[in-house]
Amino acid sequence: MLGKIALEEAFALPRFREKTKWWAGMFATDTEKHTAEINDVGPIRLDFAERHGVGLQILSYTAPGVQDIWDAKDAQALAVEINDYIAEKVKAHPDRFAAFATLSMHDPQEAAAELRRCVTQHGFLGALVNDTQRAGADGDDMIFYDNEKWDVFWATCTELDVPLYLHPRNPTGTIYDKLWADRKWLIGPPLSFAQGVSLHVLGMVTNGVFDRHPKLQVILGHLGEHIPFDMWRINHWFEDRKKMLGLAETCKRTIREYFAENLWITTSGHFSTTTLNFCMAEVGADRILFSIDYPFETFGDACDWFDSAEMSNTDRLKIGRENAKKLFKLGTYKDSTA
Amino acid sequence: MLGKIALEEAFALPRFREKTKWWAGMFATDTEKHTAEINDVGPIRLDFAERHGVGLQILSYTAPGVQDIWDAKDAQALAVEINDYIAEKVKAHPDRFAAFATLSMHDPQEAAAELRRCVTQHGFLGALVNDTQRAGADGDDMIFYDNEKWDVFWATCTELDVPLYLHPRNPTGTIYDKLWADRKWLIGPPLSFAQGVSLHVLGMVTNGVFDRHPKLQVILGHLGEHIPFDMWRINHWFEDRKKMLGLAETCKRTIREYFAENLWITTSGHFSTTTLNFCMAEVGADRILFSIDYPFETFGDACDWFDSAEMSNTDRLKIGRENAKKLFKLGTYKDSTA
Amino acid sequence: MLGKIALEEAFALPRFREKTKWWAGMFATDTEKHTAEINDVGPIRLDFAERHGVGLQILSYTAPGVQDIWDAKDAQALAVEINDYIAEKVKAHPDRFAAFATLSMHDPQEAAAELRRCVTQHGFLGALVNDTQRAGADGDDMIFYDNEKWDVFWATCTELDVPLYLHPRNPTGTIYDKLWADRKWLIGPPLSFAQGVSLHVLGMVTNGVFDRHPKLQVILGHLGEHIPFDMWRINHWFEDRKKMLGLAETCKRTIREYFAENLWITTSGHFSTTTLNFCMAEVGADRILFSIDYPFETFGDACDWFDSAEMSNTDRLKIGRENAKKLFKLGTYKDSTA
Amino acid sequence: MLGKIALEEAFALPRFREKTKWWAGMFATDTEKHTAEINDVGPIRLDFAERHGVGLQILSYTAPGVQDIWDAKDAQALAVEINDYIAEKVKAHPDRFAAFATLSMHDPQEAAAELRRCVTQHGFLGALVNDTQRAGADGDDMIFYDNEKWDVFWATCTELDVPLYLHPRNPTGTIYDKLWADRKWLIGPPLSFAQGVSLHVLGMVTNGVFDRHPKLQVILGHLGEHIPFDMWRINHWFEDRKKMLGLAETCKRTIREYFAENLWITTSGHFSTTTLNFCMAEVGADRILFSIDYPFETFGDACDWFDSAEMSNTDRLKIGRENAKKLFKLGTYKDSTA
Repeated sequence: MLGKIALEEAFALPRFREKTKWWAGMFATDTEKHTAEINDVGPIRLDFAERHGVGLQILSYTAPGVQDIWDAKDAQALAVEINDYIAEKVKAHPDRFAAFATLSMHDPQEAAAELRRCVTQHGFLGALVNDTQRAGADGDDMIFYDNEKWDVFWATCTELDVPLYLHPRNPTGTIYDKLWADRKWLIGPPLSFAQGVSLHVLGMVTNGVFDRHPKLQVILGHLGEHIPFDMWRINHWFEDRKKMLGLAETCKRTIREYFAENLWITTSGHFSTTTLNFCMAEVGADRILFSIDYPFETFGDACDWFDSAEMSNTDRLKIGRENAKKLFKLGTYKDSTA
Repeated sequence: MLGKIALEEAFALPRFREKTKWWAGMFATDTEKHTAEINDVGPIRLDFAERHGVGLQILSYTAPGVQDIWDAKDAQALAVEINDYIAEKVKAHPDRFAAFATLSMHDPQEAAAELRRCVTQHGFLGALVNDTQRAGADGDDMIFYDNEKWDVFWATCTELDVPLYLHPRNPTGTIYDKLWADRKWLIGPPLSFAQGVSLHVLGMVTNGVFDRHPKLQVILGHLGEHIPFDMWRINHWFEDRKKMLGLAETCKRTIREYFAENLWITTSGHFSTTTLNFCMAEVGADRILFSIDYPFETFGDACDWFDSAEMSNTDRLKIGRENAKKLFKLGTYKDSTA
Repeated sequence: MLGKIALEEAFALPRFREKTKWWAGMFATDTEKHTAEINDVGPIRLDFAERHGVGLQILSYTAPGVQDIWDAKDAQALAVEINDYIAEKVKAHPDRFAAFATLSMHDPQEAAAELRRCVTQHGFLGALVNDTQRAGADGDDMIFYDNEKWDVFWATCTELDVPLYLHPRNPTGTIYDKLWADRKWLIGPPLSFAQGVSLHVLGMVTNGVFDRHPKLQVILGHLGEHIPFDMWRINHWFEDRKKMLGLAETCKRTIREYFAENLWITTSGHFSTTTLNFCMAEVGADRILFSIDYPFETFGDACDWFDSAEMSNTDRLKIGRENAKKLFKLGTYKDSTA
Repeated sequence: MLGKIALEEAFALPRFREKTKWWAGMFATDTEKHTAEINDVGPIRLDFAERHGVGLQILSYTAPGVQDIWDAKDAQALAVEINDYIAEKVKAHPDRFAAFATLSMHDPQEAAAELRRCVTQHGFLGALVNDTQRAGADGDDMIFYDNEKWDVFWATCTELDVPLYLHPRNPTGTIYDKLWADRKWLIGPPLSFAQGVSLHVLGMVTNGVFDRHPKLQVILGHLGEHIPFDMWRINHWFEDRKKMLGLAETCKRTIREYFAENLWITTSGHFSTTTLNFCMAEVGADRILFSIDYPFETFGDACDWFDSAEMSNTDRLKIGRENAKKLFKLGTYKDSTA
């Protein structure tokens, strides 16, 4: 399929080259190649896109990024730097690149203001945040956004009418010591990513964020970070039990309603036909978006799979492009490869 | 289907009646009824079984049980008491009831010895452990069994040729404060249970427990605690990346091989045809076992669903009974309802 | 779900009561009840609808109906009688009933004219035809509509912008003798219905009807009369082989394109979650429509299944009502039960 | 996967080279290549097998073969010739080739005798028959085997304990004229094959063949010739209606029971993960057998798909080899590629 839109696509700041390369050692077999790919916002990426039928890439700063910086001032400064950097890059190829804002999430007002600046001045399509914000004197705290303190931020998202991509980050602090240090191979895609994000977004669901902000749109990668698997079980438990015990006070709708009205899932890093079919049954094709997770995954793996995966033509178009065009209001967008 | 075997079926000690009732307040709308049901190892349970075609119930002590007791001596004493209690109860209905051993998991040798005693003297069919053992002076530590220190225990399981059911327990200690205190509705079936057990069992996989004990059999409830959903993604990540980076040293087989040779999943608390179909594709019907999770779930919900869920007759028999007969060597078992 | 729309719902003419009752003996265990139900276009049907959340029923004359009448004049006369009869009945409950035209299919012009009359004068929503038209001196011939002679008819459908429901009828004539007489239990829902309709509609596909009439909309019952099962195989064969051998001359698009642009499937008589999930993957939820097949099936079987079948809320609304509203332009329709 | 067993693999007699090539014009783009491949029972096939991990090929004479010969004597003579020919060929590579008997189906006793000769003298693993036997003075008749006249033949199958593969053949005679002549692109894999075989085998089911021969094993290609798609619908109709109306007299079990005890399906020509997953739910992995349909399909298409299709390791082994080993009693069989 030509003209696909992909939306979990990472870049890094070239000035962090050495740190990027060191980090790559944790998951990449060719750290040089990875570093070159993630630092490029031009020919390498455009060439892959051309060859694999990707029309538009919505770029975001790589995880853990600003969510790893526990000093609030440093975090904000870096977020602004990243946003201004990528805004310039995107301008050079406005038909092929777009961007999500990078946000310091130490303070809801500050995060809301930077989002507003990015959307209104840079034309960004929303924000991508890497799970909780690391905070505290030693970086051992985690700021969650699933409470009323963050209503001002969520209100800004809905006012600007842009979605937030809730991306994972690696465990840090006490949680790391307690759970992950002794089972390091589970950090990242195999397990910790899904555990972090599913906790955070279901916290938003049960703490009433989506009831207070019914138009809020949140995107989850990796086909939904495990949640679709337990759709029946969560619904059964919430509706049959917890609603009666008090959950109804903060969580007024059913889990299926939040997935129909507030949540989206992408295919990033999960190129499985069987799992996609399952998600089509439990979540529905109208809420699934194609994505790659480049350069942690390859354009080839993602696109070869998606282009040949069995599905109806209508759903391939929806998942590959049309749903994203609706979500991001890209109605007039006309990509060159489609 | 008549003669089903169910294996995540909880009982409690009657002497804890008040505590049981208080605990029930967290999930049950009728705490009296729940307390009566969980304390009964006789007519209530047998009547439900009769009406819903359950031939054999393998009983286990309710969570968090002994795993919640951070004093090692107290934990061991309670485990022995529970085992002797249920052994007597089971004797009264040997054709309808069987039992899993309850174990204090403070010390591998002690746990192994109690398991041996239960299997050889009481005829128990294995053990059910509620995730990590709470430990430490304040109950803030968690003992995992996914390391070499526990090899003596796992060796005993394989020597006795009995499986271990890795059941969830509620989060406690620092983890509770960091992650769960502010999103209490996610504790238990909606999320925390699966997060705890999936971490623990994938820790066993990646830390080499199943390679050092290739005959070890571990059972997971709730259709696999999210893991089947990410079978493709875990496999992709392990095989494409981590094996090259060193995972191969401790984890020699693929995730699909561990699921084919060492792991089982049950339907407890997850009565979804769509999810079961998905698990049949990703895990295979030979490794799926019917279970209820009584009295947290009802015989009616579980059995009405299972008996009428669309599947081949062969798989219904396998999942409903035959797989369990193989796993527990119940070849000569002839239940009265089948 | 309230306000469902159902569109394979049969009625008969009361003046054929004895014949209807005799026919019912082939499939109904209570022929009196069946006869009463199929002759009612009022309280019985409305009461079922009320109790099961069906807002609108699109009624059609029961099979084989006019397609069984091999005398062209008699066929036309009966069609007109049926259409005028049901038009009156529908007028009495315009918010609960609508109708498909009944057509004699001996002559394309005549069929087109009657369709036009029904749509423009009676406000019918399309037509329902029972497979091939029985014809010939002895009723041994079968008229197919998958050839150029019928272009005038298909052009009228697209000009009027109404769909045709291609419903099955029982085998007759030589085909009956050769194939069905000795295996009578396969006549109807178990096999012959799907064989007849799938041949006819795939004849339309390969003989170019949809290429000559790209806006034509055809509805198939019973989740697609077997065709979705072979979507991969048909596509593989058409695209890899037959297109090269000449099929491309008459059949310019892929089978998946015809299903995305010209064909619809309904759930009539096929209340299977597993099969529906499969069709959601192969056909897509945007092209699936709820239906019952009353009174051959019950409101209870269809609606209890559909209302509790696992699916996303969005897809339940689409399949249950929204797709039908689009197809039949019922935008202003507001049903009383929803 | 290495050591796969494939069982719908066709050969032709070299002396019919010209006719084979002419026939190939109906479906092959390179008729020379097809003719070479189907006439080879040696290096070409062995090389493909080696490269694609097929250990054992069970060979059968290509359709329509002897079922197309309406002179009974000629048919019998050709069957014997074919059987003696392939017996010689198989002997040269007993570890890589096996064979199904070719049978003239004009007379049950004669067919039974030839099957017995092939199994006891040549070591054939069963028979493959191409749907109905063409018969009558002009070849316009069709002999079905779903009636009591054929009990002697089915009794011989069960006595010899070998299965029959019910393969399709092209429509001929009146059926051809009535239904297929005007929609020629539907002849073969797109439609006519499945319609012929599903009618025949469901005729066996409803006419009591499997009740009179409860150990009879029949294999269907192409993932079951549409029948699994309607498993729910057939079961619903048979059990809810027809059993009450008299079907129970000849058809004592449910359709699901026949699929669990008497029927097998193969993947020949249907390399779809979504459809295979569906069949695993409706038929069960224990009754699915890998096959290619070479040389109408390629080893590459079949094996590349199967080897990388998502499924559990256990089911891949079962479908790829272990089920066939059980069905054909190949317990001691040890193939060179596995």
